[in-house]
Amino acid sequence: MAPVKVYAPNMSTAAARVLLCLEEVGAEYEQVPINFATGEHKSPAHLARNPFGQVPALEDGDLMLFESRAIGRYVLRKFKSPGADLLHEDNLAESAMVNVWLEVEAQQYDKVMSLIFYQLIVIPVFYGGKTDEKVVAENLEKLCKVLDVYEARLSKSKYLAGDFLSFADISHIPLTHFFMSSPHASVFDARPHVKAWWESLASRPSYKKVTAAMSSK
Amino acid sequence: MAPVKVYAPNMSTAAARVLLCLEEVGAEYEQVPINFATGEHKSPAHLARNPFGQVPALEDGDLMLFESRAIGRYVLRKFKSPGADLLHEDNLAESAMVNVWLEVEAQQYDKVMSLIFYQLIVIPVFYGGKTDEKVVAENLEKLCKVLDVYEARLSKSKYLAGDFLSFADISHIPLTHFFMSSPHASVFDARPHVKAWWESLASRPSYKKVTAAMSSK
Ligand SMILES: N[C@@H](CCC(=O)N[C@@H](CS)C(=O)NCC(=O)O)C(=O)O
Ligand SMILES: N[C@@H](CCC(=O)N[C@@H](CS)C(=O)NCC(=O)O)C(=O)O
Repeated sequence: MAPVKVYAPNMSTAAARVLLCLEEVGAEYEQVPINFATGEHKSPAHLARNPFGQVPALEDGDLMLFESRAIGRYVLRKFKSPGADLLHEDNLAESAMVNVWLEVEAQQYDKVMSLIFYQLIVIPVFYGGKTDEKVVAENLEKLCKVLDVYEARLSKSKYLAGDFLSFADISHIPLTHFFMSSPHASVFDARPHVKAWWESLASRPSYKKVTAAMSSK
Repeated sequence: MAPVKVYAPNMSTAAARVLLCLEEVGAEYEQVPINFATGEHKSPAHLARNPFGQVPALEDGDLMLFESRAIGRYVLRKFKSPGADLLHEDNLAESAMVNVWLEVEAQQYDKVMSLIFYQLIVIPVFYGGKTDEKVVAENLEKLCKVLDVYEARLSKSKYLAGDFLSFADISHIPLTHFFMSSPHASVFDARPHVKAWWESLASRPSYKKVTAAMSSK
């Protein structure tokens, strides 16, 4: 069986979500770099992979997939094993909780965190521009409200969907990784269950491998 | 078996996504209204259902779920039948395509459409305010780019995930329903495959039943 191919530069947080899934299930994969500087993500070849001209895309034989959370689900289903079952689809109630918290990640957490990421990293590092501290402050306030919900949840279960690690947890890693090296990381420290949750995620081998590659580019 | 309970006012587009799923699979359910005018969605009773104080929430025995797309998945899995299988989870490749287009709905379509909805409906109808036509125009332009991708896709398959109806299609209904009664509906007419797709969705009994209830409040 040929390894699956992930089309993505190292630096992409959406791509990191997919790479983390591949590492968690121990799948063989090949990463094909996409050069943003030359606009390769908007080239006809890449638009055939993802019509929205974004990364990541995943190729598995005849199948071409895009959208990181959809690719993640595919990888986790295809390479599932008793030791690596991050969707719990055999249990209706548990898989429902995985889906609830995966939607919370996409609809509540990512919405706020990606605006903070844009201000703190994308604008200064990639465009040489100036962070708008007002936007950061507004979204930090929203983030704290979201984290209060997480703190309450994580005081009742070890992970978001229950007492088992799931895709819902893993999906938070890429943006949180960057946030934790910012001066605002203290909002995590102030919430002991959130902090312990993050520390357990950050100690996973998948985290170390994928974030080391992210920082190398 | 007691029917599931959906906590939501009629007017909510996120709730309509769940009601459409329940109708498609023919599940028995009871709708419990939530009064936004009195702030019932932020009451302790409702925050216990959904800590973000939003609708819809779904109760099924001991299980309490929120986030419309997570609830939709649960309903479609639990009440699946040979005649109503909207996730195609028994087929790895087909379910991957359902997930890709469900993510496209949430990440690309909803992002733009909900801003248009806010300007065209929420501001004038609920707050008695004035629509910002510049925001509408900007997002209409983005919507057209998304619809161009849909037109290309739907010229190759009858529905978004393939030649079968799925949750990915159904999930588009609530916001599109409102949009189609706006003066901007012509952007659908200009794309024949998108138009035919929409007409086939709008002719479903689930559509008629749920949208009639939405308009009654
Ligand atoms: N919802 C998409 C988002 C993908 C995304 O935004 N990718 C970024 C890099 S992290 C990108 O390709 N940006 C280029 C663009 O949007 O034109 C996913 O989860 O895959
Ligand atoms: N991502 C959520 C969105 C839910 C949502 O925005 N619901 C609206 C009504 S359509 C609401 O409850 N708004 C009140 C609020 O956000 O405070 C879902 O899909 O369920």
